[in-house]
Amino acid sequence: MSDDTRKQTEIHAADQIRKHQRNLNTKELSAAILSHDRAALAQAITIVESTQSDHTQLAKEIVQACLPFAGKSLRIGITGVPGVGKSTFIDVFGSYLISLGKKIAVLAIDPSSPLSKGSILGDKTRMDQLAAEPNAFIRPSPSSETLGGVARKTRETIILCEAAGFDVILIETVGVGQSETAVHSMTDFFLLLMLAGAGDQLQGIKRGIMEMCDAMLITKADGENVKPANFAKAEYTSALHLFPAKENGWTPRVEVCSALEKRGLTEAWQMISDYEKWMTERGLISIKRHQQDVYWMHQTIREKLISDFYQSPENKKRISEIESDLIAGKITAFEAARLIVG
Amino acid sequence: MSDDTRKQTEIHAADQIRKHQRNLNTKELSAAILSHDRAALAQAITIVESTQSDHTQLAKEIVQACLPFAGKSLRIGITGVPGVGKSTFIDVFGSYLISLGKKIAVLAIDPSSPLSKGSILGDKTRMDQLAAEPNAFIRPSPSSETLGGVARKTRETIILCEAAGFDVILIETVGVGQSETAVHSMTDFFLLLMLAGAGDQLQGIKRGIMEMCDAMLITKADGENVKPANFAKAEYTSALHLFPAKENGWTPRVEVCSALEKRGLTEAWQMISDYEKWMTERGLISIKRHQQDVYWMHQTIREKLISDFYQSPENKKRISEIESDLIAGKITAFEAARLIVG
Repeated sequence: MSDDTRKQTEIHAADQIRKHQRNLNTKELSAAILSHDRAALAQAITIVESTQSDHTQLAKEIVQACLPFAGKSLRIGITGVPGVGKSTFIDVFGSYLISLGKKIAVLAIDPSSPLSKGSILGDKTRMDQLAAEPNAFIRPSPSSETLGGVARKTRETIILCEAAGFDVILIETVGVGQSETAVHSMTDFFLLLMLAGAGDQLQGIKRGIMEMCDAMLITKADGENVKPANFAKAEYTSALHLFPAKENGWTPRVEVCSALEKRGLTEAWQMISDYEKWMTERGLISIKRHQQDVYWMHQTIREKLISDFYQSPENKKRISEIESDLIAGKITAFEAARLIVG
Repeated sequence: MSDDTRKQTEIHAADQIRKHQRNLNTKELSAAILSHDRAALAQAITIVESTQSDHTQLAKEIVQACLPFAGKSLRIGITGVPGVGKSTFIDVFGSYLISLGKKIAVLAIDPSSPLSKGSILGDKTRMDQLAAEPNAFIRPSPSSETLGGVARKTRETIILCEAAGFDVILIETVGVGQSETAVHSMTDFFLLLMLAGAGDQLQGIKRGIMEMCDAMLITKADGENVKPANFAKAEYTSALHLFPAKENGWTPRVEVCSALEKRGLTEAWQMISDYEKWMTERGLISIKRHQQDVYWMHQTIREKLISDFYQSPENKKRISEIESDLIAGKITAFEAARLIVG
């Protein structure tokens, strides 16, 4: 055999092995996820979150294999400003749901996670009770610079968790920025946690987030806080009535709860169950999910078009040429854009 | 001459006339604008706002011809919720500036104008005083479905107004939605009008808009309102100090005014003049405008990329094919996007 032929044969063999290994991994991993193997689930999520280019295809195959077995959970988004007690609530509420026989996955969306590291789910020990439960799976937010990137990874992680048999997915997000819109657009139910006695401004909650929520929960309703919490419940109930009615006909409700005293958990779950019943009876859950799928498809298309354009070296060169004419005041911004993408 | 030849000759002649007319119009119109002819300015703005395809090239030529003579005005964005008294303030404040020897153009941005027709500048008679001034030019918001479209038209109208010798451009916008960001990104100074005694929530002002403003003006500070207005001034002054410092070093100020009693106008103008001095001395006005130009160039590029993509019949066909697989749950939203823009 000539050296060249040998080399070719070796490369071919290596390719065969790689291909075989990859197929094996995909198949094995998917099968393990479907048999509710938590280690396999964690490994698959790591592949989905990976930025390594050879993981992209692998991730796609695993997600594709899990897809037919996904979609059966109830997806709950949870938001509220830092300090409202999101982690404590999820810890106690998640444990309560497990006591009802549910399997709970807890995910998080925090597009600024490289900066605010540890702010949400970064420290799993803040969910002591839930972390010790065999029927709970907690996964911190993936690190990623763009909200789009985090959103894709979280949406694919939901699919994997559902295929792994988790029937309630709780997705936590901080009450600022664009991440609420993202979480709202990937969940069935959107829960806003609020503190009693603090004005809306102090809580940094935007009107838009209040409009998005399907229910509000006043947290820390214990001790001296019980009275203000009940007052806040009445106040927010009437405030929510001021918003235009939701298209699905659901009227958002307000409840109080105490994670400390484990009170209000049944009421919170009742509220969510009533919503699920309302939506399911009207066939609205699947319509909502279809709309969300279409929304994310278009979002992804837009992001891809823009990032492809800006990554091209020719475009970069053209932009910097035209930009100098723009800054010199020779052309308008719109003419500059026309010359670049015309 | 054969019939065919005659036809060709006729077409050629018509083309020549059209070309000639067009060049003449462009040249004539631009020259008339530069000689401060208001009728020519109005006609040119109509061409800029036109959606007729044969007006696009014409608009481009006129704007290009005016561009070297633009940029010398002070561009002031004015926002506030409906009811705060924007039109009345602009009417009285504009007249005051004219009494100082200024020439004032008043424009508006209202991306939802087809729906909220008449809400801003729709009824010029609401600016009685200013409408009668020969040194004032009032132009309602162009009708256009997209904010991008309205923004382009308004930016080009600013250029035309500046070439026509107007030295203060007031751009009004309603205090909701994305239009504030657009106006903020095309003005030198951003003024937020506020009512005394109404909470922030009631005024529907988002925190982001307060962060954007260079000054706040408490309106209707007359009669029984004087005391609450001064109280609000103190309150907002301290509130503004809570925001992170602006990059340009300017600290937003708060003043009170009464359009009814024509009080606070000198103070408002002093505040704006101090800002202009601050920015000019540091060379920051031109830096700000360059950044705005670059911002609008990229905004326009993004919009164009997306609209070109969605307008293509092949893409439309491909999207509807893939969308049915998506809705059938065969693929994820991200896989669907990958298949479309791969």
